[in-house]
Amino acid sequence: MKILVLGGSGFIGAHIVDGLLADGHQLRVFDRAPLIYKSGVENIQADLGDVMALSEALIGVDVVVHLISTSVPSTSNKDPISDVNGNLINTLKLLDVMHQSDVNKIIYFSSGGTVYGHPQQVPMTELHPTNPICSYGIVKLAIEKYLNMYSELYGFTSTILRPSNPYGPGQKHMGVQGFIGTCISSVLNDTKLSIWGDGSVIRDYIFISDVVNATSMAVKKLQSGTFNISSGEGFSLNEIISYVEKYTQKTIQTEFKNKRNFDIPTIILDNQLAGKTFKWKPEVDIESGIGATVEAFLKARQV
Amino acid sequence: MKILVLGGSGFIGAHIVDGLLADGHQLRVFDRAPLIYKSGVENIQADLGDVMALSEALIGVDVVVHLISTSVPSTSNKDPISDVNGNLINTLKLLDVMHQSDVNKIIYFSSGGTVYGHPQQVPMTELHPTNPICSYGIVKLAIEKYLNMYSELYGFTSTILRPSNPYGPGQKHMGVQGFIGTCISSVLNDTKLSIWGDGSVIRDYIFISDVVNATSMAVKKLQSGTFNISSGEGFSLNEIISYVEKYTQKTIQTEFKNKRNFDIPTIILDNQLAGKTFKWKPEVDIESGIGATVEAFLKARQV
Repeated sequence: MKILVLGGSGFIGAHIVDGLLADGHQLRVFDRAPLIYKSGVENIQADLGDVMALSEALIGVDVVVHLISTSVPSTSNKDPISDVNGNLINTLKLLDVMHQSDVNKIIYFSSGGTVYGHPQQVPMTELHPTNPICSYGIVKLAIEKYLNMYSELYGFTSTILRPSNPYGPGQKHMGVQGFIGTCISSVLNDTKLSIWGDGSVIRDYIFISDVVNATSMAVKKLQSGTFNISSGEGFSLNEIISYVEKYTQKTIQTEFKNKRNFDIPTIILDNQLAGKTFKWKPEVDIESGIGATVEAFLKARQV
Repeated sequence: MKILVLGGSGFIGAHIVDGLLADGHQLRVFDRAPLIYKSGVENIQADLGDVMALSEALIGVDVVVHLISTSVPSTSNKDPISDVNGNLINTLKLLDVMHQSDVNKIIYFSSGGTVYGHPQQVPMTELHPTNPICSYGIVKLAIEKYLNMYSELYGFTSTILRPSNPYGPGQKHMGVQGFIGTCISSVLNDTKLSIWGDGSVIRDYIFISDVVNATSMAVKKLQSGTFNISSGEGFSLNEIISYVEKYTQKTIQTEFKNKRNFDIPTIILDNQLAGKTFKWKPEVDIESGIGATVEAFLKARQV
């Protein structure tokens, strides 16, 4: 199939492009960042809001994989209007252009870590109430609703993936969203690691190759629905630190700051629906994943 | 209390202003439509997106009642981007100005008729899944999520009312949203009544005085939460037609058109939570309400 990956130059996107290439698909990447890609991948450098560029990018495309986000959870509350403009409005433009172009299959990366809000129980299934307490999650949720509307009214196939906290080689360091990367970076560079709260916050980390496999299966199946993509297990920040210390045989200097009002104490996502639907399961446990990520960071430093 | 009513010149807004005046409150109305109001009500004519006007309008205000919508359910899907700009973005501006102005109590009129989507069962409680299939409902829902976020993070008191289908004297004729008004208008003017589908669509109609009473109680209680404001009963379009015919002793000429893809077959909303919380219950049954509305239409024609 011919697949357009929106946001294909980011951490998750670049891995997904590699995975889909390995599956034998034709790939086109659309990203505002300049791309240096392997041969066989078409590159379009443009903003999501650029309707002309989108229109051209959609020519001949079977499936769109949409990974673009102009905001991150930890700062989205500072400017919700920019969040809505950059993500919701631009995704509505995308959907309109897709509809006009007769491209009606989309896999959208939502956010398992923010759309649910405070858990009523863990692990949370996709049927758990959705009460985000950050703009990032609210915008992701609104986009999900429009995707479902397009599915019902216009015959779109809208696959919504709700990944928990993806991590792995190539990860950038953007605070809690990339905690494992930040943690490894601290230990390797011998810098102090800042932690909001006492380190007891529990998150569900999913290794990037498992996210790639889920996407690969979702492309094969192409079915409307909403699916958690998660490990189904929770680890505290302190546990992550101890795993990184154990693997690297080094001690991390930590600095505990006041916790932030939008940090949910515990998020663990049930992954059974994705398991059943896509014959998928996460394969990389947290210690192996952290080990592989440390090795990749070390290798990148040597280059 | 000093209450700012955003959208106070519309059908619902005008009744609410009257009700809150009768309760002894001081009223300020903010609306883009020119207002001709009774003495004692301050008028500000401006758009919701006008931050300067909003900022002035909030001076000395205890509670904001937000009724403004720039879209209606039946046409919102034609231009979702305008819907998001006119309603979501502008409400985010409002919330930001309120936060800066230390005005943190708001009663928001959401939409019980559109936020739920297809019912899993009827009547639907506030805990029913929310999967709107029109942009109007998605935008209302996103605004609800931001209100809850402001409530959790910034200490706002956000009361979200989800009225079913309000009707009564002063109603405008805007298709299905104002079906009872349209129906009465047809019979009195002897024009053909267009119906999308076979008339079997069931809705929950709530008389305007019951909406006013609920708002009045919500202002007294001021408590964060989400509340259906409904009759709890469902009537088909054909039943409404027969009630109007019965009251007026006239026959309505109907024209049945193809049903629309975004019309949900049955919506009936459970009103027990509002009942318990606000000591409120709907008091006007459908036949009395239709009678009162017909009389008001006749009276308006004589003027």
